[in-house]
Amino acid sequence: MADDNVVYIGNKPVMNYVLAVVTQFNNGASEVAIKARGKAISRAVDAVEVARNRFIEGAKVKDIKIGTERITTDRGETNVSIIEIVMAK
Amino acid sequence: MADDNVVYIGNKPVMNYVLAVVTQFNNGASEVAIKARGKAISRAVDAVEVARNRFIEGAKVKDIKIGTERITTDRGETNVSIIEIVMAK
Repeated sequence: MADDNVVYIGNKPVMNYVLAVVTQFNNGASEVAIKARGKAISRAVDAVEVARNRFIEGAKVKDIKIGTERITTDRGETNVSIIEIVMAK
Repeated sequence: MADDNVVYIGNKPVMNYVLAVVTQFNNGASEVAIKARGKAISRAVDAVEVARNRFIEGAKVKDIKIGTERITTDRGETNVSIIEIVMAK
C-alpha cells in the first residue's frame, strides 16, 4: 500500500475523516488504512463505519490491528494505544 | 465461548476492566471477549493492551470486529459504533 493511502484520525469531526477516506477510494485506491491513537480510536471506528455503511459501496474491513506506542509528552514518557483499520473495496 | 467470558467496557477506570479480563483467564477461560461501544471503544483497546503487555503471559489478540448498532436514546434513534476484541492464551 502506498504511504498516501493512509488517513490519520485526529480531533476533528468524524465527517472530515469519512470524506478523506471516500476521496482516497474515489482517487483509485483499492485499500485505505485508517490510523488513530488514544481517545481518537473511537472516532476511527466511527469514520470507518460511516464510510462503509453510507458512502462506499462494497467496502469491507480487511484487517484491524491494535498495539501500543511509547510517546514522549511534557510529563515524560507514556504508553498510548493505537489502532490501524484497513478498508478495501 | 461461554457467555460469561465477556467483559463489557463502560466508563470506569481502565484498570477495572484489566482486572476483569485477568480474572477470567485466571478462572480458566481460554478466550475472553472484550466488548465496547461509542467512546468506550478507546478504553477497550487500552484494557486489552494493558492486560496483554503487563499481566497475561502469552495472551494474543485472536480477533477484532467492528460494527454499528442502532440504539434508542431520549432524543430518538441513533447509530453507535461497536467493537469486539477476542483475547486468547
